[in-house]
Amino acid sequence: MSEGSGEDRLIQRHFAPLASHPAALGLTDDAAVLTAPERSDLVLTVDAVVGGVHFFETDPPDLIARKALRVNLSDLAAKGAHPLGFLLTLALPPDIEEAWIARFAGGLREDAAAFGCPLFGGDTTRTSGPVTISITAIGALPDETMVRRSGAAPGDLVLVTGTIGDAALGLKLRAAPGWASALGDAQVRHLESRYLLPQPRNGLAGAVRAFASAAMDVSDGLIGDLAKLCRVSGVSGMVEAASVPLSPAAAAALAAEPALLETILTGGDDYEIVCTVPPARLRDMIEAAAVAGIPITVIGRIEPGHAPLAVYDAQGQAVTLRQPAFSHFR
Amino acid sequence: MSEGSGEDRLIQRHFAPLASHPAALGLTDDAAVLTAPERSDLVLTVDAVVGGVHFFETDPPDLIARKALRVNLSDLAAKGAHPLGFLLTLALPPDIEEAWIARFAGGLREDAAAFGCPLFGGDTTRTSGPVTISITAIGALPDETMVRRSGAAPGDLVLVTGTIGDAALGLKLRAAPGWASALGDAQVRHLESRYLLPQPRNGLAGAVRAFASAAMDVSDGLIGDLAKLCRVSGVSGMVEAASVPLSPAAAAALAAEPALLETILTGGDDYEIVCTVPPARLRDMIEAAAVAGIPITVIGRIEPGHAPLAVYDAQGQAVTLRQPAFSHFR
Repeated sequence: MSEGSGEDRLIQRHFAPLASHPAALGLTDDAAVLTAPERSDLVLTVDAVVGGVHFFETDPPDLIARKALRVNLSDLAAKGAHPLGFLLTLALPPDIEEAWIARFAGGLREDAAAFGCPLFGGDTTRTSGPVTISITAIGALPDETMVRRSGAAPGDLVLVTGTIGDAALGLKLRAAPGWASALGDAQVRHLESRYLLPQPRNGLAGAVRAFASAAMDVSDGLIGDLAKLCRVSGVSGMVEAASVPLSPAAAAALAAEPALLETILTGGDDYEIVCTVPPARLRDMIEAAAVAGIPITVIGRIEPGHAPLAVYDAQGQAVTLRQPAFSHFR
Repeated sequence: MSEGSGEDRLIQRHFAPLASHPAALGLTDDAAVLTAPERSDLVLTVDAVVGGVHFFETDPPDLIARKALRVNLSDLAAKGAHPLGFLLTLALPPDIEEAWIARFAGGLREDAAAFGCPLFGGDTTRTSGPVTISITAIGALPDETMVRRSGAAPGDLVLVTGTIGDAALGLKLRAAPGWASALGDAQVRHLESRYLLPQPRNGLAGAVRAFASAAMDVSDGLIGDLAKLCRVSGVSGMVEAASVPLSPAAAAALAAEPALLETILTGGDDYEIVCTVPPARLRDMIEAAAVAGIPITVIGRIEPGHAPLAVYDAQGQAVTLRQPAFSHFR
């Protein structure tokens, strides 16, 4: 009975190489043991991604793995935390072969190294359903400095990183709609790749901590997520749709099909940071973003009161959105 | 757009009551923020439970929830840690109704309170597959005191808490085998309940930390798990099958059908603690367990070398087991 089980063999072969941090104990124990950095708070976040819901089961396994980790890294970035490591559960249907697992672990290893976020521990199991991945990411930041959703104040500017809507359009492209013919090949590839592989803004974590009054990552749609931020901050706000930063591909799609504005503003999967910044800190924030090489754009303003978040078009007319945010449940 | 989504409503209605700890921020943020206890290490463990694999989808939802939490609490106990809190992901098929979610959350709330392990955060999603639950539990203990699997030394005694084999027999009962007729109704209920609801030994965490040289929880079968402990400790060992503690129900089942010994020793789902204790600390460990009200039994001994773990019957004959531990993968 000295030989390991098939499960132990899979873990040692494919996942132990990601578990370089001493906390992981080489994945040979029941648990990881982490000494928290001094005078720091820990930031804990968890997200599951499910085949057929968050990705297509035919997507490349390395990209599935990297997306699963990155959606969590994006939460840490928006809170102002730097990553320490992560825990993984992986439920696999019986038809998944070891080559798939090897590619999955390879993608995860690449991003664990790139983002400085090693594997602390995990659990693998079978399922009769789709591939299901749950990742708990652990970050750290100086005591009492986590940036919450609840700190927005009237007068603060609303800023968002990168570009919005690409991933939602990339997902929509897979159903091959007519407007796709208005795009060049490179634009199509850009939108598809933004759906497959988010670009979390971990390079902006320090600036968010230093200059933002409130922040969150945009996962369920810009307008719905910002509305949540306003709600827990007890404020209202407005967004100028024409200021929302678009990639050339998204701009071309919108020009071909103006109704895509709703997809862009509410579709989700952006994994950008939306934050609020007091006017006195706006210049510092913009400079810090430039230093980090991360585009950031002012898109609106926080206002007093509890009125629903308002969205205006270039003519100053209110834009009505049918469903402001994605939800798995009605 | 000031109303919450269906998902937010579900979370606030059913899960926010479990999130009493300030770290959870009332489940209104992207992440939890935890101030680690001073001069402590954090112990991190994660386990997924999947419908049709770890539980029957017709099982009571409150018991499914409590089992999902308890399998993680059991890991913390075996490492000598006390629970701080947990994070949850819950993937639900479309036919799950809100009443199911309410009962699930109710069971979780009961155990979160009973074990002092509040909800820190989570994520809910849809799945086309079975109910899938992943829980990350976070515990703490004094710096550098986590009890690993790797500390067993020749001469140490092998001890196990509670009784072994009940849950595996309880699972086997569901296929209604012949030997069940040898059991009384109360015995059948005992075995079934041990499968449905593990009894993690968190009351023994302090004693494990004080007196054990190595420990782990028994989840995949006593003999296979102990063999893993021996492997990472670089030692061999022996177990006397007749010393392995059995409940009256398991003893009656074994008397009716001697071949069940393999199920008992290797079936898993026990969630007891197996640990190794140097002879000089044996009395202290046994006394501490008595004070905690947790039965504990010496079942074997650690030996030098790398020979496979040996199991002997009451006549001193070696017992051969076909498959020493449960594995999801071959």
